[in-house]
Amino acid sequence: MSNRIITIGREFGSGGRTIGREVAKKLGIPCYDQELIEKMAEESGFTREYVEKESENASLGSWAASALGMDGTYTAPTNQDRLWAVQSRIIREIAEKESCVIVGRCADVILEDKADLLRVFIHADFDARAKRIVEKYGETEVPTEKRLRDKDKRRALYYQFYTDRKWGDIENYDIILNSSALGPERCVDIIATLY
Amino acid sequence: MSNRIITIGREFGSGGRTIGREVAKKLGIPCYDQELIEKMAEESGFTREYVEKESENASLGSWAASALGMDGTYTAPTNQDRLWAVQSRIIREIAEKESCVIVGRCADVILEDKADLLRVFIHADFDARAKRIVEKYGETEVPTEKRLRDKDKRRALYYQFYTDRKWGDIENYDIILNSSALGPERCVDIIATLY
Repeated sequence: MSNRIITIGREFGSGGRTIGREVAKKLGIPCYDQELIEKMAEESGFTREYVEKESENASLGSWAASALGMDGTYTAPTNQDRLWAVQSRIIREIAEKESCVIVGRCADVILEDKADLLRVFIHADFDARAKRIVEKYGETEVPTEKRLRDKDKRRALYYQFYTDRKWGDIENYDIILNSSALGPERCVDIIATLY
Repeated sequence: MSNRIITIGREFGSGGRTIGREVAKKLGIPCYDQELIEKMAEESGFTREYVEKESENASLGSWAASALGMDGTYTAPTNQDRLWAVQSRIIREIAEKESCVIVGRCADVILEDKADLLRVFIHADFDARAKRIVEKYGETEVPTEKRLRDKDKRRALYYQFYTDRKWGDIENYDIILNSSALGPERCVDIIATLY
């Protein structure tokens, strides 16, 4: 396959999604993020909201409890397992079809050995992320610090559960950028130049 | 202080030192690596060989045992503690004096809040690093995999002991590059462009 795929993992509030969109725009290739959710909803029969909530984020309780039986062995596939299968298939189909940017959803591992990948991870200083999520999503009853930690934890657990790797660990990426230290524009430039 | 300092942490065998030298050459600024060892030897009274072996690498046994007493509390400063003090002072003096590249030796933390820093970390795939150290330093009686793991472990422990941070953890760096995936020339270009 000669398509070149940029996968972008990102901490919550790091602006990784926006950076992905800008990179794609600059390179004139599509960026898959919300579009993946639409496709997954369509193909799985779950609602868009359910897919958005359950894909990519470990929902502890329902998830961890149902994925492992009381004795620690696997039980029947959960809804999330089904979503993972649909997600994996859709991501592989997209990579077969065209060069693109894919944000999140373990695409780096799903496409490993299946496409020419540039595996990017975007992080940012904690304060910058806190500021960003309040600006972008507003305040909620939950303290900002807890929102950040919870979302990152869910993404990390989801990634680890389905890929057996550690989310955000340097080994899994070709380039890791601190968007608050470098600025988002420079991140976009660097990624686009590497493409 | 208006000097701009590039600090380069690196896995053993990743080519980080060479990348640091090339960046410095490209930017027309000095690169401190072996030069630090010379200066440290001069100012500490230890031999060059001793400084090279003991600076930056935790030498377990002598080090961990003497740094902590039997009851886990600190005892008198070790030789390595003295080297750390000399090293920290020299690195701060260099940063006061001129813009430069500094390879390893926790310069990223020593200079934090004291200079305008670009904190870089270079890593590479395990096989590429194994190949590189054999090419560069030859075979030894110790298996290559063990040499890599040991050296990284010593650097990581040293860094953690003196800085209370995790070596190679994304939080501590502005940009992290995989030199075997991107190629050393592109790493040099990216870092030089960010300067």
